[in-house]
Amino acid sequence: MEKLNHHVNAAVEKEAERQLAILTRGSAEVIPEGDLKTKLIHSLSMEKPLNIKLGLDPSAPDVHVGHTVVLQKLRQFQDLGHTVQLVIGDFTGKIGDPTGKSETRKQLSDEKVKANAKTYVEQFGKIIDMEKAIVTFNSTWLSTLNFTDVINLAAKTTVARMLERDDFEKRYQSGQAISLHEFFYPLMQGYDSVALKTDIELGGTDQKFNLLMGRQLQEAYGLEKQVVMTMPLLEGLDGQKKMSKSLGNYIGIRETPNTIFGKCMSIPDELMMKYFQLATPLSHEELADLERGLMNGSLHPRDAKVRLAKTFVTLFHSAQAAEEAETYFQNVFQKGQLPSEIPEFQWENDREVAIVDLLVTIGFFTSKSEARRMIQNGGVRINEVKVQDPKDDIVIERDMIIQVGKRKFMRIVVK
Amino acid sequence: MEKLNHHVNAAVEKEAERQLAILTRGSAEVIPEGDLKTKLIHSLSMEKPLNIKLGLDPSAPDVHVGHTVVLQKLRQFQDLGHTVQLVIGDFTGKIGDPTGKSETRKQLSDEKVKANAKTYVEQFGKIIDMEKAIVTFNSTWLSTLNFTDVINLAAKTTVARMLERDDFEKRYQSGQAISLHEFFYPLMQGYDSVALKTDIELGGTDQKFNLLMGRQLQEAYGLEKQVVMTMPLLEGLDGQKKMSKSLGNYIGIRETPNTIFGKCMSIPDELMMKYFQLATPLSHEELADLERGLMNGSLHPRDAKVRLAKTFVTLFHSAQAAEEAETYFQNVFQKGQLPSEIPEFQWENDREVAIVDLLVTIGFFTSKSEARRMIQNGGVRINEVKVQDPKDDIVIERDMIIQVGKRKFMRIVVK
Repeated sequence: MEKLNHHVNAAVEKEAERQLAILTRGSAEVIPEGDLKTKLIHSLSMEKPLNIKLGLDPSAPDVHVGHTVVLQKLRQFQDLGHTVQLVIGDFTGKIGDPTGKSETRKQLSDEKVKANAKTYVEQFGKIIDMEKAIVTFNSTWLSTLNFTDVINLAAKTTVARMLERDDFEKRYQSGQAISLHEFFYPLMQGYDSVALKTDIELGGTDQKFNLLMGRQLQEAYGLEKQVVMTMPLLEGLDGQKKMSKSLGNYIGIRETPNTIFGKCMSIPDELMMKYFQLATPLSHEELADLERGLMNGSLHPRDAKVRLAKTFVTLFHSAQAAEEAETYFQNVFQKGQLPSEIPEFQWENDREVAIVDLLVTIGFFTSKSEARRMIQNGGVRINEVKVQDPKDDIVIERDMIIQVGKRKFMRIVVK
Repeated sequence: MEKLNHHVNAAVEKEAERQLAILTRGSAEVIPEGDLKTKLIHSLSMEKPLNIKLGLDPSAPDVHVGHTVVLQKLRQFQDLGHTVQLVIGDFTGKIGDPTGKSETRKQLSDEKVKANAKTYVEQFGKIIDMEKAIVTFNSTWLSTLNFTDVINLAAKTTVARMLERDDFEKRYQSGQAISLHEFFYPLMQGYDSVALKTDIELGGTDQKFNLLMGRQLQEAYGLEKQVVMTMPLLEGLDGQKKMSKSLGNYIGIRETPNTIFGKCMSIPDELMMKYFQLATPLSHEELADLERGLMNGSLHPRDAKVRLAKTFVTLFHSAQAAEEAETYFQNVFQKGQLPSEIPEFQWENDREVAIVDLLVTIGFFTSKSEARRMIQNGGVRINEVKVQDPKDDIVIERDMIIQVGKRKFMRIVVK
C-alpha cells in the first residue's frame, strides 16, 4: 500500500468522504474539520485504524442515555474500522480532592476504581463493542511522572490560557477560590492524549476546553494534533436541562425495561427527533423516513415515541424485553387499567424509604401496622408489581405509581 | 531545663529581648514580630538553636555587597547561637526554563551546580561561619516528589493568591504570558521550609511573597509557621538602583582590594551610613558613634568612607590588604600622582575587549601595531598597573584609568 496509484487514491478519497459524512453527522463541532478528512485518508491509505479517545470519570459509573450520545458516535467509528480508547481517569480519582472541599472528589480506593471500571465495561458493552475497545487507566502513565516532568508539563501552557476556561474565569472574576491543583485536571486529560497518541478525542460540548488542551499538549510534545469532536448535550425528560442523575431527569441504562419505556414515553414531542438522532443507532435514511412521517402526519408522534422507547429497551436489555415493556405500557397506561386521573404526591424526603413509611407518608394508612397488614395480604403494588415483603425499602422514582387495593392510586412526583 | 523556675524565666526573657533588639535592627519587616520573640524564648528555654534559612539561586554565584546585607544578618544569628540553613535551589536550576524562553534560566549540569555551590561556600565564608552553617540542595527532597505529591502541594494555594505577587499580577494584567510552571518556583521555595522545618527565613524585601509562601505551606503541612524577616535592598554605587551585577553598580566581594576600595570611595555620601548599617558587622554602639561624628562635624565624610572601604577590604580580603589599598588610593587619587582633570571616554561596547583594541578605540593610537609596541615597551598602565602582554583581553570597569607614557590619561566611563 506504500505506493498509491491514482485509482486507489480516488477510492480512498471516496471512502473518506463517506466516513466523514457519517462521522460529522450530529456532532456539535469538529476542530478542525479538514484534519478529520486528512486523518481518514491517511488511515485508509495506510490501512491503519485511527485512535478515538473518550475519557471517563471513575467516580460516577451510572450510565444514562445522555452518556450514550458519545458512545453511539464511538460505535460509528468502530463500525468504520477504527479503534476506541477508553481512558478511565483513575489517577484523578485516586488523588481525590486534596483540599477536602469537594464531596464528589472523594479519594477512591484501587478496589473501587476497578469495580467502577467493571461497571463501565458492562454498561458500555450495550452500545460499543467492548471486545475491540482498548480500556486503559491513566494512572499507568500519570503516576510515573516526577516533579521535573510535571514542571515540563505545566510549562506547556499559561495561566491566562487556563483562566479562559469558562468556569475558572467566572470563579476568578467573582473572587471564588480556585485551588492551584485544579489547573492540573485539564492538563492530565490532555496528557492522556499525548501518552496514547490519540487521533480524535470525543466529548460533550462542555468538554471543549479540556479536549483542546489535548491538541495543545500533543503539539508541545512534538506529536500530531488530535481532532476534537464535540457532541451536543442531550436535554433530560424535563426538556430543559442537560440530562443528569442529580437532576432526576434521566433514563438510566440499568433501569428496568418498564421504567425505561415509561420514562421514554414522557419525553416532550419536540425533543424526540434529537433523541433519535443522537442516542440511537438509526441510520441517516431511517431518521429521514421518521422525520418525513412526522412532518406529513403519516406517523403519529406517539407511535414514533413507542419506537424510540423500544429502541432503548432493545439496546439496554433485549428485543424481547422491549416487546414486553410495550405490552405492559399499553395495558397499564393506554388500555385504562389505571384511572385516567391519578392524584399526585410531591415527594421531598429521602429517595430511599421503607415501604410502610411511604404508605403512611402519602396518607394511605394512618399506621405502619395497617400498611404492613395490607402488604401481607398482597394488596399493595408499585408500578403494577405486587410488593412482597413489608420490610422492603424502596427507591423513589419519578412517576412511580403506588396502588392499594383496586381503587387507591397515587403518583409520586419528584422535583 | 525542662522545669523552668521563675528566675530562669526572667533571665530567658531578658536574653530574648536582647537578641530581639539585635536581630530586628536594620531589618525591613519581621512577620510577625511577636512570633520571633516567642521562638527566641522557646529556643533559649529548650537550649535548642533556631533554624535560619536562606535560599540561594545556583545560577548566579558572584556575590556582591548587596548580597552581604542578608549574610550579615545571618552572621548575627550565628553569633547568638542559632543555626544557618543555606539552601541551594539546584532543583530549579536543573530544570532550567522548560519553555526555553529565559536565557538566565538555562539548565545547569550537576557539575555546574556543584561548582557554583563551592564558590558560594568560599565567598560566604568571608561573612558567616561556614563550618557551622548547614548547606543543602533542594533537589534532595524536591526530586523525590511524584505527581500526586505535586498535586497535593498545588492544592495548598490558590490561583488568586499566586496572582497577588506583584510581577505576576502586572504580567497578567498587561497580557504578558505567565507559563503555568512559573507558579511552582514560589511553591518550591516554600516547600523547602517544610522539608527543613525552618524557624526563620531571610530574604530581600523583593522576596516577601516567596517567604510568606513558606509560612502558608508550613501551616498547610501541619508545621509551626516560620517567621519571615526581610532586609532592605541596598542601592548600588549610582545611589539609585538596587545593587546588581547587570547594572554594573556593584562592589563584588571577589574584586581586587584596590577596586573594592576605589568603588567604595565613590559611594554617595548620603548612602554611606546605610552601607555601614546593613553591610558591615559594626555594632550598634559603633554605628551610633559614627553617626554622631558625622552629625557634629568631628568626623569628615571622606574619613568615614575610608573606614567603610577598609572594613569591606578587611572582610573580603584581609586587614593588611585594606592598609595597602588605602595607601594605593591615597598615592594615586589623593596625592596628585594623577592629573586632577582626566578626560573621560564613554564606553558603550562589549565589556571584554583586547587591550590593543581598547587603546585604538579611545584614540591613543591609530593602529594596533603601534599600541602593541608601546605595551611591549612597558608604556601602558591600567589603574597604575603596567600591562605586560599586548595579547591581553581586559574587562572594562567603571572609572578605569588608562595611562600611556607619563602624560596621556583617559578615564573610562561606563553607563
